Amino acid sequence: MHDVLTAAVLRAGGTIAPLADAEGLIFADPGAAAEYPTLAAQMPNLTWVQLPYAGIETFTQHLNPELTYTCGKGTYAEPVAEHVVTLALAGLRDIWKYVPATAWNDRTGRNLLGANVTILGGGGIAEHLVRLLENWRCEITVVRRSDEPFPGAHTTVPTSELHNALATADVVVCAWALTPETTGLLDAAAFGTMKDDAWLINVGRGAHVVTDDLVAALKAGTIGGAGLDVTDPEPLPSGHPLWEIPNAIITPHVGNTPEMGLPLIAERVETNTRNFIAGQPLIGLVDPAAGY
Amino acid sequence: MHDVLTAAVLRAGGTIAPLADAEGLIFADPGAAAEYPTLAAQMPNLTWVQLPYAGIETFTQHLNPELTYTCGKGTYAEPVAEHVVTLALAGLRDIWKYVPATAWNDRTGRNLLGANVTILGGGGIAEHLVRLLENWRCEITVVRRSDEPFPGAHTTVPTSELHNALATADVVVCAWALTPETTGLLDAAAFGTMKDDAWLINVGRGAHVVTDDLVAALKAGTIGGAGLDVTDPEPLPSGHPLWEIPNAIITPHVGNTPEMGLPLIAERVETNTRNFIAGQPLIGLVDPAAGY
Repeated sequence: MHDVLTAAVLRAGGTIAPLADAEGLIFADPGAAAEYPTLAAQMPNLTWVQLPYAGIETFTQHLNPELTYTCGKGTYAEPVAEHVVTLALAGLRDIWKYVPATAWNDRTGRNLLGANVTILGGGGIAEHLVRLLENWRCEITVVRRSDEPFPGAHTTVPTSELHNALATADVVVCAWALTPETTGLLDAAAFGTMKDDAWLINVGRGAHVVTDDLVAALKAGTIGGAGLDVTDPEPLPSGHPLWEIPNAIITPHVGNTPEMGLPLIAERVETNTRNFIAGQPLIGLVDPAAGY
Repeated sequence: MHDVLTAAVLRAGGTIAPLADAEGLIFADPGAAAEYPTLAAQMPNLTWVQLPYAGIETFTQHLNPELTYTCGKGTYAEPVAEHVVTLALAGLRDIWKYVPATAWNDRTGRNLLGANVTILGGGGIAEHLVRLLENWRCEITVVRRSDEPFPGAHTTVPTSELHNALATADVVVCAWALTPETTGLLDAAAFGTMKDDAWLINVGRGAHVVTDDLVAALKAGTIGGAGLDVTDPEPLPSGHPLWEIPNAIITPHVGNTPEMGLPLIAERVETNTRNFIAGQPLIGLVDPAAGY
C-alpha cells in the first residue's frame, strides 16, 4: 500500500517530504487512527489529510477544524454496490439454500428483476447501485437526510419516513455512513415494518443494526433474510448465533477487498494530490460537523 | 397452468375448442411430449402448436413439417439472464465459500465489474444478459453460429473459434440451445483452454458439458469453478461427485422457476393466439431443421 500510494503522489507531481516540511499527509493505515495526533504534532505545515477509508467514524475525534480532511468516500462505492447485488441475488434466489445442498432441491427463488429496492443513504453506493440496476426494472426508493430527489430513484424520502420506506421493500440496502443519527436505526421496530420475505443487505456499518433484534427477527421469520458484509461486533466471533442461521449470509467486509480497493484509493490520492498542488477543490471532503 | 393459459387464450379473443375442431394446440405440459402424436392424430384442423418450453430437444422427433410450431424461446430469457448474474457473482465473489462458514474468513473475492464475459449462444439469454450488464464495464464476447455482430457485444465469433473465445474469459456462460452440434463441446479440451480462475456458468443444457471432464477440471484446478443450473444427468443424483466440490454451485434448474415462468409463457400464448387469429407472424417460431 505504501509503495502504491507513494507512486500515486509522484505521478501527480507531488514530493515525498519529511514530517517537518510536508503540507499534506496521506494516511495509509486504516487501523492506525490512534497514531494520528502524534504525527500531526510533528507537522507544522500540515493543511490537508487524506484518510484511507470511506467511513471515518474511528477518526472523527481527531478532526481539527483548522485542517482539510478528505477520505475514500465514493471511491470504493462501485465494488460495494456490486456486492449489494451479489448478496441480494444470493438471498432472493436461494443460493444460501443451494450451496450447502447435497441433493436436488425444490425449485424455488425470486427475482431481483422488478423488485422494490429501498436504499438507506444517498451517497456513492446508492449512486452506483442505481446505475448497476438500471435495466433491472427495480422500483428504487432512497432514504436520505433531505428529500431532494436522488438521481435515478423513483422515490426519495427523508430519514423521518424510514419505516414507510421499509414497509414496501423486497430488498432493504443499508448504505448509510455511521453517525449518531443512524446508529441502531435497524431495530426490532424497523424489522417489524418490513415484509416477512424482504431481505436486509448491510454494507454500511454493523452498528446500524441492533444485532440481537436482527437475530430475533430472523428466528421469528419477521423478515426473509439478511446479507451482512458488516456486523456488530465485527469481526463476528465464532459461536455467534448469526453463524447458525441459514438465511443470514455473512461475508467478511469484502464489498471492496484490499485488492479491489488499493487501485481505487490510489486514484483518489493521485487526483487529490494533483488538485492540492493546483489549488483546486479536493474530492471526498469530510464534513467535520456531519462526521462523514 | 391450465387455468392461466386458458385465460390467456380467452384474453386474446380465442375460443377453447374440442380436439376435433381446434386449429391450434397450446401444449401445456412440459413433461408430456410423448403424448403429442396421439393428440395430433385427433386434430384434423391443426395448423399451429405452441410448446411450453424454451429448449425443445425432447420434442424434435415429433415435428411435422406441414405444421407451424412455436415455443417459449426468448420468453424465459430475462430471469435466466438474472440467474447467470447470480451464479457469476456467487462464484467470483466467493459466496460459495462464505455461506457454509461459521467463522470470519480471509477477505477474498473478485469483481464481475470489468470482467471478460464470453457467452455461448446468441439467443434471448445473451440479449438480456448484455442488457442487464450494460453498466458493468464487462468486455463481452458472443460465440454464435455466424459471426454477424451481436448487438451490445464487443466481439462476436463463430462456433469454430470457440476455444479462442474461452481462453480470455473470466466468466464463460453456456446459453446454447441443445443441438447435435453443441452437445459435449464443453469438454476437457475446452476446460484446458480456459483460465485457471475462470468460472463456467451453465444455463443451457447439461449435455453441453462432459460432466466427467468438468469434475476432473474442478478437482485439478484447471478452471476456477462452475455454476450449474442444468446438469447431465439431471436431476443430479445424490452421491454424485459434483455435490462434494465446494466451488461447484448447483441450482435445480431455477433460471426460471415455475412461478417466474408461468406469467411469461401466458404472455407468449396470448400474443401468439392474437397473432394467429389475425393472420400475423407468430413469435418464437421453431426451425425444424435447426431443432430449436
